[in-house]
Amino acid sequence: MSVRAGIVVTGTEVLSGIIPDRNGPWLSERLRGLGVELAHIIVVADRPADLQAALWFLEDEGMQLIVTSGGLGPTADDLTTEVVAAFAGRDLVLDEALEKRIWSILERLRARWRNLDEDALRAGNRKQALVPEGATVLEPIGTAPGLVMSLEERTPTVVVLPGPPRELQPMWEVALQTDELKEVLKDAGTFEQRILRLFGIPESEIARSLRELEAEGVPLEVLEITTCLRRGEIEIATVFEPPFAEAYERFAKGIKARHADTLFSTDGSTIDELVARALEGRTVAVAESCTGGLMTARLTDRAGSSAYVLGGVVVYSNAAKVAHAGVPAKLIEAHGAVSPKVAAALADGARERFGAQIGVGITGIAGPGGGTEAKPVGSVCLSVAAADGRREDRTVQLPGGRADVRERTTTVVLHLLRRLLAPT
Amino acid sequence: MSVRAGIVVTGTEVLSGIIPDRNGPWLSERLRGLGVELAHIIVVADRPADLQAALWFLEDEGMQLIVTSGGLGPTADDLTTEVVAAFAGRDLVLDEALEKRIWSILERLRARWRNLDEDALRAGNRKQALVPEGATVLEPIGTAPGLVMSLEERTPTVVVLPGPPRELQPMWEVALQTDELKEVLKDAGTFEQRILRLFGIPESEIARSLRELEAEGVPLEVLEITTCLRRGEIEIATVFEPPFAEAYERFAKGIKARHADTLFSTDGSTIDELVARALEGRTVAVAESCTGGLMTARLTDRAGSSAYVLGGVVVYSNAAKVAHAGVPAKLIEAHGAVSPKVAAALADGARERFGAQIGVGITGIAGPGGGTEAKPVGSVCLSVAAADGRREDRTVQLPGGRADVRERTTTVVLHLLRRLLAPT
Repeated sequence: MSVRAGIVVTGTEVLSGIIPDRNGPWLSERLRGLGVELAHIIVVADRPADLQAALWFLEDEGMQLIVTSGGLGPTADDLTTEVVAAFAGRDLVLDEALEKRIWSILERLRARWRNLDEDALRAGNRKQALVPEGATVLEPIGTAPGLVMSLEERTPTVVVLPGPPRELQPMWEVALQTDELKEVLKDAGTFEQRILRLFGIPESEIARSLRELEAEGVPLEVLEITTCLRRGEIEIATVFEPPFAEAYERFAKGIKARHADTLFSTDGSTIDELVARALEGRTVAVAESCTGGLMTARLTDRAGSSAYVLGGVVVYSNAAKVAHAGVPAKLIEAHGAVSPKVAAALADGARERFGAQIGVGITGIAGPGGGTEAKPVGSVCLSVAAADGRREDRTVQLPGGRADVRERTTTVVLHLLRRLLAPT
Repeated sequence: MSVRAGIVVTGTEVLSGIIPDRNGPWLSERLRGLGVELAHIIVVADRPADLQAALWFLEDEGMQLIVTSGGLGPTADDLTTEVVAAFAGRDLVLDEALEKRIWSILERLRARWRNLDEDALRAGNRKQALVPEGATVLEPIGTAPGLVMSLEERTPTVVVLPGPPRELQPMWEVALQTDELKEVLKDAGTFEQRILRLFGIPESEIARSLRELEAEGVPLEVLEITTCLRRGEIEIATVFEPPFAEAYERFAKGIKARHADTLFSTDGSTIDELVARALEGRTVAVAESCTGGLMTARLTDRAGSSAYVLGGVVVYSNAAKVAHAGVPAKLIEAHGAVSPKVAAALADGARERFGAQIGVGITGIAGPGGGTEAKPVGSVCLSVAAADGRREDRTVQLPGGRADVRERTTTVVLHLLRRLLAPT
């Protein structure tokens, strides 16, 4: 791994937690694919001194590549180009042809809004057309151009990208075609990433397996292995250089042998992808209570899901469970709304009402209110049922707050669906 | 603002984009409330040298407070305590009493899993009970203790917190009670934050208003104003020291005067909160197509929403629209599934079927497939209807990909609901 990189994300709104950083993670994945080792993502506010300090820190740490996002807008608090020019020791020069190209974009946008102030637009236009001497301009996707600059005798090459992901992502692809970036990336190794996913096992068991495999002589030191708990699943991400593919295979084989019952994905597929694939050519419908629509939303998150998701019904009240999911009122009276029998009736009701092959039923207590000693917050009854009578039912006790319980529930349901749909 | 802080988020899984950083933004908001100026959030992998470099950078930049998150687990890749001890020039010492307290937590957790390896647990237990000399221990919320350390003659005080937000958040409150942190925070100013939210206006118009207000003599230089586009809304966040409250009032008044039609929140309330309040004592039901359950999920996201959300139905196919939302088949034939008339019929159908006072209907093309020249991807028809005949209908053309279109749609609907429910 001979090329190291740092990312600087600018924006008071990101630093202050008002909006999440979507660019750091995205660029991180892209860099990994290019064989670049990312060392730091630094988030700074729209304060020139802090941005300047971050750039110098990354240069001092020996980064060959620095990528910035944000701060290229038309307003006065957008300072990245100016700060990067100062960092590079270059003057800012007005690029008149670029100014005209930006103006033609602005003219189109103006049509969408009434009463825009022309002077304001012109001033912003001019600002966005200021370019550090010797920089390569990346054409605007929105209205902001990006930049690529090599700093000659100094180490880092700097890529300056706009903040909106919709602009940053396509512009990154353009940046990759510049001579400056090609020059940096020719020194990058290539490396492979593999992901194993497990469900229903604590992280410490994976740690134990790692120790055992090491003791058996599997050369884990050539693999960069990261385990993390994510949405109730364990993800083992491994990065390695191509010559060490065999070491990875031995490692993966060892994990498979030890955790066959909980390992559900070895090719990077998520549970959502696996369930979507398993649902191909079948149909599913949902009747959900505590998840309030999230289950159906998660199933329909994927493009093309209309082929297999027939629909869903959110039945919060007991009356709605009876009227819209066909749950017998007596069942609720006898067992309570949060009970395995009601979950099963919801699954069957969803299936029958929508004419689907598979039904999903969810009833539980997401909290913060509504818990009892017998059924505390986090108690959820789940059921997935197929038309041929096969079914998977579970009652689980999930940790965390309302949002956690709702989200975890959808994950457990996907795992039940995978089990139900597994070729037998 | 006399106290500056930096946050270091550790974890290869965060740096590599596998899981999003939830701690940086959370700590950022807390620090702002305490009058601390956050300068940097740095994300690093589980590599000791990079974490060390980040700590030294923050000390060199003059931070009085450094908060780290993550890397306190029982496994070998959890290195934060070790690196912080080296940074502070302290030895690690086994705290035997702490080791016993952690063990008693582990014993409880063991009950949930079968066949756990005792040696592995003991090794992890011992590692987590190693504490830098002179550090104050923060009792574990999960199994990992946190730390607070002042570095004597050196400037920064370091707070070391675990990675899981469920552990970090309550432990931060405990850290605030330590003498070390009280000592740092006594120098912090206090400052105020206010948020204005607008919907249906471009960001450049806010920039124009800022310039006009400045020209009129409103002292904007004492206000730290950040505008950002978020989920289709504009958020103007302003931070100021208490003596400048009057300047803020003049600023806010100027914005209100200019943007009365699009300004919907002046007290920090989100559109979700405003709609939830407006729905108090009423009932609502949803029939949604392209949002696939997200609309009902968003309405039920809030604790207590069962009081006013009666339910929802996700009707993807035309057959489901007819069977489960009462849309006349002829209406779909005549106007197409994505049409204002079908949206209105969905709203009415949801209202009638669930016996709600207010119905929401959504039909549109979320993409990536399904678009036509007349109805491209992002075309969405929305309707909210009250039992008394009042209604708000819209057809919008939303930008972005599938996830953007789905999410933006729910935002537009909330604004229609707010309008429908506004006292007249």
